[in-house]
Amino acid sequence: MKIIITGASGAIGKEVSALLGQRHEIIGASLRNSPHQLDISSVSSIEKFLEATGPFDALVSAAGDAYWGPLQGLTEAQLRFGIENKLLGQLNLVRLGLKYIRPGGSFTLTSGVLADDPVAGSVNYAVANAGIHGFVTAAAQELLVVGVRINAVSPGVTDNTMERNGPNMIGHTPVAIARVVNAYVKSVEGIINGQIIRVY
Amino acid sequence: MKIIITGASGAIGKEVSALLGQRHEIIGASLRNSPHQLDISSVSSIEKFLEATGPFDALVSAAGDAYWGPLQGLTEAQLRFGIENKLLGQLNLVRLGLKYIRPGGSFTLTSGVLADDPVAGSVNYAVANAGIHGFVTAAAQELLVVGVRINAVSPGVTDNTMERNGPNMIGHTPVAIARVVNAYVKSVEGIINGQIIRVY
Repeated sequence: MKIIITGASGAIGKEVSALLGQRHEIIGASLRNSPHQLDISSVSSIEKFLEATGPFDALVSAAGDAYWGPLQGLTEAQLRFGIENKLLGQLNLVRLGLKYIRPGGSFTLTSGVLADDPVAGSVNYAVANAGIHGFVTAAAQELLVVGVRINAVSPGVTDNTMERNGPNMIGHTPVAIARVVNAYVKSVEGIINGQIIRVY
Repeated sequence: MKIIITGASGAIGKEVSALLGQRHEIIGASLRNSPHQLDISSVSSIEKFLEATGPFDALVSAAGDAYWGPLQGLTEAQLRFGIENKLLGQLNLVRLGLKYIRPGGSFTLTSGVLADDPVAGSVNYAVANAGIHGFVTAAAQELLVVGVRINAVSPGVTDNTMERNGPNMIGHTPVAIARVVNAYVKSVEGIINGQIIRVY
């Protein structure tokens, strides 16, 4: 398969790329440090990237950022940040990717535990993650009839990001990155559709 | 209580206003046909409205629109419509309303069954509704410490909107509007917090 992986240089994308790269052609993209440069918050960046890479069999989105901070005093720009980036960015990858995905292909998006189990300061992540769950649930029904699958992986805080994310994720138990990678494998190489694969 | 009701002239807002109006002061707002004009997709419209109405005890948001149509061929503007209106509009009511809500007050937002149980053409509603669920779940934890509650009512298609919405809601069973109104009553006059009250 020809598999696009966005956020390919990130803590999750790097590991997914390494595993799927053992048996598939990987097109890695990210803001920095990947073969292809891609800013998912920009529609024109997505369009240019997809046009350059052409038809593909699977798209794994492991990119998407949101704002970390308390609801009290949240500015319009802070609230919009995760909606433009992690939510709309991933939705636009699907919307625009539909022109290039091959029959039998799949999309795998990334949400996260904060959709269901928030901590202080996670409001913007919670909105983006939960929005992705709604999108995947609805889109899966419509895409089934054109032979395309879509799922989301909702990881907890991973053991390889505890140094950075652990202090914010009060009381959350780290998940082995290998378990999270397997969720992406299940979505890409398996047959499931419309699932939110919770790994926490 | 002094209760703001947005979408006060709509199929749900009208009934919630009628019931809560029997024992509370209602400040009704909507795009048209209400004492106060309010466009929730505009931050300046929300700011102007809240400044004019001043401190309040409860805000019931029964306003919020999204785009109805298939994912295949969805434009950027169509995808953004529900995100700017039903999702960000309601989030901004809370974000800006926090300056005016009295201690012990509550916010009640409106999502909908399409977050969990989509039909053809409901992708934009699904994203907005599910995003609201994530927001309410996360915001409730942070607002508890300042003595403010927040819930969402997630109604199915109501018996008083079947003529308009029924044809799209294939296989959905209409819910009595009185049951939906009771969910808002439970959120405003009760003590629950952080709940998604599913009425379908």
